[in-house]
Amino acid sequence: MFSGDTSDPSDLSPAAVAAARERRKESKASAKLAKSAKRSAAAAEAAAAAALAARPLPFAASPPARPWGDYGLIRSSTRSSRVYSPVAALPSLEGQAALVRARVHSVRSKGGGSFLVLREAGTLDTVQAAHFKKSDAEHGGDVARYIAGLPAESIVDVEGVVVPAQVRSCTLSTHELAVSSIHAVSRASPPPFTVEDAARSSEVVEASQATERPFPRLGQELRLDSRWLDLRTPSSSSILRVRSAVCQLFREALYAEGFAEIQTPKLLPGESESGAGVFRTDYFGSPACLAQSPQLHKQMCISGDAGRVFEVGPVFRAENSNTRRHLCEFTGLDFEMEIKESYEEALEVAHGTFKHIFEGLETRWARDLSAIRSQYPSSPVLVTDDPCVLHWREGQEILAEEGFDMGDGMQDLTGKQELALGRVVREKYGTDFFILHKYPASIRPFYTMKCPDDPNYSNSYDMFIRGLEISSGAQRCHDVGMLVENIEAKGIEDWEGSLGKYVDSFRHGISPHAGAGIGLERVVFLFLGLDNVRKATIFPRDPNRIKP
Amino acid sequence: MFSGDTSDPSDLSPAAVAAARERRKESKASAKLAKSAKRSAAAAEAAAAAALAARPLPFAASPPARPWGDYGLIRSSTRSSRVYSPVAALPSLEGQAALVRARVHSVRSKGGGSFLVLREAGTLDTVQAAHFKKSDAEHGGDVARYIAGLPAESIVDVEGVVVPAQVRSCTLSTHELAVSSIHAVSRASPPPFTVEDAARSSEVVEASQATERPFPRLGQELRLDSRWLDLRTPSSSSILRVRSAVCQLFREALYAEGFAEIQTPKLLPGESESGAGVFRTDYFGSPACLAQSPQLHKQMCISGDAGRVFEVGPVFRAENSNTRRHLCEFTGLDFEMEIKESYEEALEVAHGTFKHIFEGLETRWARDLSAIRSQYPSSPVLVTDDPCVLHWREGQEILAEEGFDMGDGMQDLTGKQELALGRVVREKYGTDFFILHKYPASIRPFYTMKCPDDPNYSNSYDMFIRGLEISSGAQRCHDVGMLVENIEAKGIEDWEGSLGKYVDSFRHGISPHAGAGIGLERVVFLFLGLDNVRKATIFPRDPNRIKP
Repeated sequence: MFSGDTSDPSDLSPAAVAAARERRKESKASAKLAKSAKRSAAAAEAAAAAALAARPLPFAASPPARPWGDYGLIRSSTRSSRVYSPVAALPSLEGQAALVRARVHSVRSKGGGSFLVLREAGTLDTVQAAHFKKSDAEHGGDVARYIAGLPAESIVDVEGVVVPAQVRSCTLSTHELAVSSIHAVSRASPPPFTVEDAARSSEVVEASQATERPFPRLGQELRLDSRWLDLRTPSSSSILRVRSAVCQLFREALYAEGFAEIQTPKLLPGESESGAGVFRTDYFGSPACLAQSPQLHKQMCISGDAGRVFEVGPVFRAENSNTRRHLCEFTGLDFEMEIKESYEEALEVAHGTFKHIFEGLETRWARDLSAIRSQYPSSPVLVTDDPCVLHWREGQEILAEEGFDMGDGMQDLTGKQELALGRVVREKYGTDFFILHKYPASIRPFYTMKCPDDPNYSNSYDMFIRGLEISSGAQRCHDVGMLVENIEAKGIEDWEGSLGKYVDSFRHGISPHAGAGIGLERVVFLFLGLDNVRKATIFPRDPNRIKP
Repeated sequence: MFSGDTSDPSDLSPAAVAAARERRKESKASAKLAKSAKRSAAAAEAAAAAALAARPLPFAASPPARPWGDYGLIRSSTRSSRVYSPVAALPSLEGQAALVRARVHSVRSKGGGSFLVLREAGTLDTVQAAHFKKSDAEHGGDVARYIAGLPAESIVDVEGVVVPAQVRSCTLSTHELAVSSIHAVSRASPPPFTVEDAARSSEVVEASQATERPFPRLGQELRLDSRWLDLRTPSSSSILRVRSAVCQLFREALYAEGFAEIQTPKLLPGESESGAGVFRTDYFGSPACLAQSPQLHKQMCISGDAGRVFEVGPVFRAENSNTRRHLCEFTGLDFEMEIKESYEEALEVAHGTFKHIFEGLETRWARDLSAIRSQYPSSPVLVTDDPCVLHWREGQEILAEEGFDMGDGMQDLTGKQELALGRVVREKYGTDFFILHKYPASIRPFYTMKCPDDPNYSNSYDMFIRGLEISSGAQRCHDVGMLVENIEAKGIEDWEGSLGKYVDSFRHGISPHAGAGIGLERVVFLFLGLDNVRKATIFPRDPNRIKP
């Protein structure tokens, strides 16, 4: 029921146009059968489309007039019947003509031949397109000159017959396209660095430094300044999909456990959980700030009888931390659930969820992991069937044995201590993923339930991958009196304005509950053993970077 | 591998505790077989748990000492082997003892009997629990008095045998629990309104006004001030799940079309797309603002060769609009994709996605829809198999025929006009969901591709449900020169700081692309035919509300 883009009012009826579209669909199907059939159907189609549009077409109708040249700007003037094939489908089209849209990764000429490596967006696929002058007495020279002048990173439409070939430089190694026509969709200006350079492992780059043609070392800032280019490497492209996959697997695991997804407000009155580290704004004349976590609202959903909830959303931290693992804005994977008796119930959900994520990545996203690991080597995360949960005291003992001075045993772990703990746990229990619980209450937020036997400790936990923290959580304090006491003991003043409603939500009956907040970027960065969390972030924000 | 919560260091080994846990699991399984077996296993289990914990247990171990009374605060002191049953599982336990945790919806006494309606969190299930004094000569009177003193909205553990019964007031109408013990987990203070009052349809409330006992009319502000209470009604609870479902169905449809999920930064330099309507903040000494949409970054992902991306995330609008359909923070369902020739390709994806959402809700979330419709009546959204796409001019003609003065035909539609258009389209084409395209360029953002034939119009579209807009989108302008021209023509000054990187991302080759932004709350509110978008928002934000 497209009314199309026609200037003839009599043609505006969706019903009439639906019929025209139906015809177009049919012609599309038949076009797949054979090249000649396709050509004639396409010509008929082009005529029909032209009649429908009844106006000049800046975007060349199918087939284009000349076998080479730049298209005009594609502006949806018409829709031809040309069928674009993804690179992965080409082997099944052997001997037939195919049309591919892709980016020019590289161009090289040799004798009378031109060879393009074409890189497809959204997949890891590359294919070689080969053109030989002698293949076309009339236009061969023109096409060769045109190809030689195409800048890398330009986007092109290449038409040609799919022929068997042995191509080592492309992911499609069994076939190539014998170019019959090539048109630029979008020409690239010279980029600040090439995707080829950005895609090399540091091992290869360093090894090349002693040779005559050392590969350039591309610094992180240079890459991030033109992040859209850096995203085009196989590893970045796969990391983007792995991020997506972690979210998908996280949700799959929690849907199966009866959770519902929520979105809670990021604009909060006053100063949220604590005064430090918040971004402030003016909210129609009142002071407001950006949520440092969905903590308060996911708990209010528990009071609202949602039972089990999760959220995937941004988390804001105005902390001037310039480290390889801190960001000022990251994606929180949060969950919160009623518990019957113990936060162990939440730890079991967390463990099952992480296991589903790790196993899902290694199996269903194996190709992406392989692409990432070929630039950034890493091994799979070891994980036990049952949760590996260490008591705070056990952690302290292990670290004391490792030679650390643990003082009074009540201080938060340093990064070095966490790494050492991760190493020992791996040796002792055979896992890269573990949970440390019963943290001292003094280093946990006011909404944490203290231990029943000793108020100096709390029903809290952190989760680690390879000795780096990816998640924090706890049983929450669901007693109003105790909650107010905690707030005041933490020195939070004038909390009525920012926390009053939150406290009120515990007055009308509330189930004991527990949950956790997980940093998506941390999970991706540590799962993949990357050296910097920014590599796991699409457009990172840190104290020195708010662009692009 | 739980190291548990023990004070004996020799018990800390995860391996030792894993074995203990294994035993506990087995005892759990056998406990299901029969009540007596369960009791003895539970007693053995309680002893084992006590030995493991080796400390006083503030939370009563299983079985509790007395058949009535308040628990101490549940603080994860121990984990018993008691098995909690969801209400939905009770019919399968007929004749057996079961333990249920739920909220006291109402209590009523009659003769020697006490009757509780128990409401389960996270489901729509309610079950009756009945207690008769004479059933227990020793404690019957105590238990009856205890039940009579339980405030509504308290959370309780009720144990009893599942017996056949006819119960009209509960969703479980075939069985009830014959109470043998009842303990309060959390007592409720008197709430500002009852969930029962909040759950009535306005039809019933209005009809009662002429009677002797009129039901209270609960205003929207009262409900929102204690949103956690209002969330406990069947309709609110189901709306929360329908929101979750829309996100799930949106993603399902797009995963199937090869999309990856992205998260883009909400903190932007300068003033984002336009100066008006942005929340500002200080970013480590530089001016920044909150993203009004993920537009710029999802397009940069296209330049980054992500191919097809979507995002589910918050969108901020500092607009002082106090209407039933505007929010200052809402959830955007955005997608962006490369197109080969025409934005029709994106419209097909959008149509398929909405169809999947509408049909998925009616089938897989039918019970939730029914709960919502019993308080807020509505009919399913009519939708055609193929997209119903109307040209801007057809829209103008229809509205002129409806008696509206359309002026020069270049002004954005008013709410009234949109509703009238929705009505006519429904009559003419049999659909509640349609797309209007080719809007005047003057009323669309700078990043919109203008029509190839007439720069006064644009390759843009809005989508409507029942005559109200739920989505805006367009083919984007992917030509650098044209883009800069558009920015300057819109009067955006000093755009280099806020838009410079975005413009740069088009310089290195970019595919034509199109997409759309959809308001989650609008979809839910209009799909359900609600009177106010706030009902479809968990914790709404408007110019007068930033709490709770």
